[in-house]
Amino acid sequence: MQTLESLGYTVFFEENLSSLEDFIFQRQYSQILILVDRNTNDHCLPVLQAAMPSITDYDIIEIDPGEENKNIDFCIGVWKTMLDFGADRKALMINLGGGVVTDMGGFAASTFKRGIDFIQIPTTLLSQVDASVGGKTGIDLDNVKNIIGTFTQPQAVFISAKFLATLDERQIRSGFAEVIKHGLIQDRNFYEKCKDVELDTIETSMIKRSVEIKNDVILKDPTEQGLRKILNFGHTIGHAIEGYSLSNDRNPLLHGEAIAIGMICEGFLSYKLNGLSEVELEDLTTLFLARYSPYTYTSDQYDGFIEIMKNDKKNEDNKIGFALLKEIGNAEYNIYVDKNDIVEALDYYLSKTK
Amino acid sequence: MQTLESLGYTVFFEENLSSLEDFIFQRQYSQILILVDRNTNDHCLPVLQAAMPSITDYDIIEIDPGEENKNIDFCIGVWKTMLDFGADRKALMINLGGGVVTDMGGFAASTFKRGIDFIQIPTTLLSQVDASVGGKTGIDLDNVKNIIGTFTQPQAVFISAKFLATLDERQIRSGFAEVIKHGLIQDRNFYEKCKDVELDTIETSMIKRSVEIKNDVILKDPTEQGLRKILNFGHTIGHAIEGYSLSNDRNPLLHGEAIAIGMICEGFLSYKLNGLSEVELEDLTTLFLARYSPYTYTSDQYDGFIEIMKNDKKNEDNKIGFALLKEIGNAEYNIYVDKNDIVEALDYYLSKTK
Repeated sequence: MQTLESLGYTVFFEENLSSLEDFIFQRQYSQILILVDRNTNDHCLPVLQAAMPSITDYDIIEIDPGEENKNIDFCIGVWKTMLDFGADRKALMINLGGGVVTDMGGFAASTFKRGIDFIQIPTTLLSQVDASVGGKTGIDLDNVKNIIGTFTQPQAVFISAKFLATLDERQIRSGFAEVIKHGLIQDRNFYEKCKDVELDTIETSMIKRSVEIKNDVILKDPTEQGLRKILNFGHTIGHAIEGYSLSNDRNPLLHGEAIAIGMICEGFLSYKLNGLSEVELEDLTTLFLARYSPYTYTSDQYDGFIEIMKNDKKNEDNKIGFALLKEIGNAEYNIYVDKNDIVEALDYYLSKTK
Repeated sequence: MQTLESLGYTVFFEENLSSLEDFIFQRQYSQILILVDRNTNDHCLPVLQAAMPSITDYDIIEIDPGEENKNIDFCIGVWKTMLDFGADRKALMINLGGGVVTDMGGFAASTFKRGIDFIQIPTTLLSQVDASVGGKTGIDLDNVKNIIGTFTQPQAVFISAKFLATLDERQIRSGFAEVIKHGLIQDRNFYEKCKDVELDTIETSMIKRSVEIKNDVILKDPTEQGLRKILNFGHTIGHAIEGYSLSNDRNPLLHGEAIAIGMICEGFLSYKLNGLSEVELEDLTTLFLARYSPYTYTSDQYDGFIEIMKNDKKNEDNKIGFALLKEIGNAEYNIYVDKNDIVEALDYYLSKTK
């Protein structure tokens, strides 16, 4: 059995979720709620059911899939359904899905009756490597991502590579951006390995190493006072582009696709302001452009992007803070950047995709 | 200076909030937001301003007064205003008002950007004696009270009897029900003292003793695993009647008015099921009926009341749990009560008010 210890709970890496049933039985919950979206209801719930054959009494809460639904309206719907099912404080919520389900389900559980237990079963590569450790729950408000949320740890996380077979290639590609990020900020060898990975054969060991990198950072800084901010590499600009795309594009960018753009832009900032070599900037730019399709924006949109960045949680005193690379495998945080440099970074991405 | 130590923070009893300004300066906040309602904006904000003459740069967020507004819609409005003001993680929120402001402001602060600091300055007797310690934040949903919330401690609480002069007599009467409750559950002498109090001359020492009783209970059980449930005496039936009244009466019951009814009903349950003597039941019934006007309901409403009770946070495994008195000054918790007995208790109140 492969496990990692996080902040007071265990992350289980198990194809068949084989420890799950015992884990639940030992805790004597009054009731079990399973939060799914339409996709995980169809494709992942059977795996969960097979893993806990003796547990047949549970209620299903289904939400619509898609990042645009990770908002307060859907969250109110989840709370009301929990009320309708008569959930009490000893109920357990199992969040079975991608980041929308695990982030919103975690927030709903952490605030329902001032907090009930929840277990995260992330089913996308993105949520497995990104949302599975750290205790961040959250929803979006007015296109500002994760602006409402809590730091609340789950009781356990279960990660099965089996679920990846239910995803289309675009979703795996999106999640893989966070895998590459973990290499960029902490582990140059792991970054190099990422270059050769075929997206249809991602192994559990690669997922585990990615989670391990994130977990090591989190254990050193549970509430994002300092070090943990390096995990935001690519996310300041990436979130802004993602938020813009969500409200303007018919087929919006996925999280990882936006973060890949963000990492190219913030790679440029790392080169210009933080000592990243030109060779390394070229290296990561080439890697991302080879894996992710180009996205188009114009300089008219820059003010809108920067407005969203100002509302990003990482900022303090109205300056825009970034995590930037020193070199590949080594990141630093709390680097405050001028608007002009951000504009130059956004221009850099465009120049590379023309 | 009179203070109490609660869960990692201090409750200051100060007419002129004289420690407040230094307290804020020492913590170097990036920004100050003050949450008020229309009434506290007019009547209490000047006291706050006078207490921190050197702090002139702050933003005001105003909400509509009234328990019916302690809901998710207003909370979304508060979050959005915080966003508009560009609040970052090092911002401080000062909640200046009654329970609606302190409960909702505490919830908004504890979930904005996954949690910013907040100071509670309760301005009603009810919020001073009830909401000032314990770290409960919350809002109502679908008329179920405080169903969404967190356990989050403020940085400090400031209590000034000065604010009571801004209240009408009905509000003070409402808050006084919680003062009496603290005597009933923990301190018979204090309960006896409550009998003679004139509502227009409540002294700080009385408020402090009331908070102290609650604080002692909370320090022993911060997350309501056990003992703390005794604070819910009167609240299981009281909340149900309050919720009903909020959605049906043109001039709905105030919290304490509903809790007074709840304490008569649950006093009856204490007598019938938990050893409270008939003499003591009579004693508390007489006290509450002398101080609080009779309220009318009919047996048609009982099912609705019981439905709300089932959603109350105190319940587990779908049974309805109560805190009941053993004698005046001594309460017990986790007493599960049948529907028939609840009906009898509701009948008891009606029989006494006819």
